Amino acid sequence: MNPEALYKISYGLYVVTSQKNGKLSGQIANTVFQLSSDPILIAACLNKENFTNECVSETKAFAVSVLSKDTPMQFIGRFGFRSGRDFDKFEGVNYKIGKTGVPIVLDNTVAYLEVKVKDTMDAGTHTLFVGEVVDAEIVEDKEVMTYDYYHRVKQGKTPKTATVYISKD
Amino acid sequence: MNPEALYKISYGLYVVTSQKNGKLSGQIANTVFQLSSDPILIAACLNKENFTNECVSETKAFAVSVLSKDTPMQFIGRFGFRSGRDFDKFEGVNYKIGKTGVPIVLDNTVAYLEVKVKDTMDAGTHTLFVGEVVDAEIVEDKEVMTYDYYHRVKQGKTPKTATVYISKD
Repeated sequence: MNPEALYKISYGLYVVTSQKNGKLSGQIANTVFQLSSDPILIAACLNKENFTNECVSETKAFAVSVLSKDTPMQFIGRFGFRSGRDFDKFEGVNYKIGKTGVPIVLDNTVAYLEVKVKDTMDAGTHTLFVGEVVDAEIVEDKEVMTYDYYHRVKQGKTPKTATVYISKD
Repeated sequence: MNPEALYKISYGLYVVTSQKNGKLSGQIANTVFQLSSDPILIAACLNKENFTNECVSETKAFAVSVLSKDTPMQFIGRFGFRSGRDFDKFEGVNYKIGKTGVPIVLDNTVAYLEVKVKDTMDAGTHTLFVGEVVDAEIVEDKEVMTYDYYHRVKQGKTPKTATVYISKD
């Protein structure tokens, strides 16, 4: 078995956001996808250790901001490599509050989706949250960031909490 | 709500294969992704109307062939726009039988994964099949086909049974 084969699956790069008792959370994720067209069901896969997972589990809602290809690495680092438990990731970030009360990041965002969770599935290190789209808009007509581009061109790293992390030790 | 926002999610392009009582099945899918790194869990989302869904439901195993960027449209059409119930999609196609007994397509394939199904989730028009990777190999070191490239450059179409289909009527 060659685990490198797993790297051949294509993904985008997203900020997934939620909140809990008014405390905002957001994290970088690559596993966001549409599961059904009728109803429109969206899934996001979040690590159990992440604060955003805790928020989505409780609030039953999340938003997805599709990042643009030109998103600065600093912005990705802000949401991807620190915990929202002890750091305000939203300071200085342009966002709005959606229909379900979750924050929606608008900086470096091509489009966003807001989702009401209907079902969850346990997936080892992660939880898969599945829900109906309650709002969706195009923010800026730009090329999207792919996970492949993030790694290959931007030399981006993957934290241990990612779905696709493989230890190189 | 602007459903065009849904098109900003990134996907690859895959042939998902299975079998039922020795009858082989295969279909094109875009929603294949890794859900967890420990254990390595892979998910594939298949329309309930498709024969491959029927096969995976019964056999509890499937394989995923990651298509290369230069896959001919004719090959995609063979697996994507006809039903395996009344047409042998594998005639003239290079494949092997995997550890679980499912066929693994090798033509136009960058890498493949073979998966034993552990869990399923109902998702409206589709079923989400989740399972552990029992085999994974790189077949040919080539660029992968993305769903975006298939649509934008190859002018590929989407059948009504896709997760991402939106009626333009």
